[in-house]
Amino acid sequence: MDYYSRQISRLIESLAALPGIGVKSAQRMAFHILSMPQQEVEQLADSIIEAKRKVRYCKQCCTLTDEEICPICRNKNRDPKVIMVVENPRDLAAYEKTGKFEGVYHVLHGAISPMLGIGPSDIRLKELMQRLQGEVEEVIIATNSSLEGETTAMYISKLIKPTGIKVTRIASGVPVGGDLEYIDEVTLLRALEGRTEL
Amino acid sequence: MDYYSRQISRLIESLAALPGIGVKSAQRMAFHILSMPQQEVEQLADSIIEAKRKVRYCKQCCTLTDEEICPICRNKNRDPKVIMVVENPRDLAAYEKTGKFEGVYHVLHGAISPMLGIGPSDIRLKELMQRLQGEVEEVIIATNSSLEGETTAMYISKLIKPTGIKVTRIASGVPVGGDLEYIDEVTLLRALEGRTEL
Repeated sequence: MDYYSRQISRLIESLAALPGIGVKSAQRMAFHILSMPQQEVEQLADSIIEAKRKVRYCKQCCTLTDEEICPICRNKNRDPKVIMVVENPRDLAAYEKTGKFEGVYHVLHGAISPMLGIGPSDIRLKELMQRLQGEVEEVIIATNSSLEGETTAMYISKLIKPTGIKVTRIASGVPVGGDLEYIDEVTLLRALEGRTEL
Repeated sequence: MDYYSRQISRLIESLAALPGIGVKSAQRMAFHILSMPQQEVEQLADSIIEAKRKVRYCKQCCTLTDEEICPICRNKNRDPKVIMVVENPRDLAAYEKTGKFEGVYHVLHGAISPMLGIGPSDIRLKELMQRLQGEVEEVIIATNSSLEGETTAMYISKLIKPTGIKVTRIASGVPVGGDLEYIDEVTLLRALEGRTEL
């Protein structure tokens, strides 16, 4: 990209390194940024720095938040006895959009994948098991309907069953191979309603 | 987006304000940024701030650069007597990628659009006319093949013709590798009108 000057090339490269952003999109974004008022540019840079600086894991559900306990775990109208286990915060957001789930979440930050060398100790499973020592009635496993997601679901259900807590899996209304965050809300609701005991 | 905490929502909103980035892409980018090492996050933010701070218009061709004169205008192997007029720096980059144009550029930063209230004085046309007082043999108008681009091309050619400098327009027609059946009728007509003898 030697037809751009150094600072512009650097900006385009930084943006193109983000997921789903090709060089063309990065160019478009870069020139848009250069045309933005100084103040907005500083706000954009600041939002990146501040999010990274302040965000941490919720002490209860392990989702990303900027407080000790995330707004969902803190919400007294949510039922802490029903825990939905998801792979990442985007999946949590996908279920929150349905507006119908009144329990709380547990975010694993990944799924078990022998292929990628990701084992049970690489995801936030220990934290889930610790939560189950409190008063929990049901664990709904909402990992993706992929090989890794199913493996993780099986692993977790085997781990929990001896405790006597009810373990369910969201129904396969979710298309096989589908990624939760891209699925429409109706399908997500069907999957929730049709959950079966493992 | 109240299922994300404030800092994360703010980051997602900042990213979603960029061109071509929807909320889903912004979410994906945001969580990627949060998972990046601190140092890389700071570099990303810095590349945004520094590009905005240092980048200005090239004193000759008006493209965006971080020096007084951009690398193309400075290059002694380029022919300053042939000027290609483009709408923006991305179009300049597109032609540079061909590696075959040996002249220099002039970047208008827009196109005349009565609909959007963009007149000749809102684009870098005065700067182009000033350059023509030097030794220039040909001005190639490479504005887009849109209504605005064509309007701008017509306007510029009328402005330059009295000076006696040769004014040309890049050909419109069927893109190489394009399938006739998927190409719009206006383009097909242009291709017919612009046919050349074999």
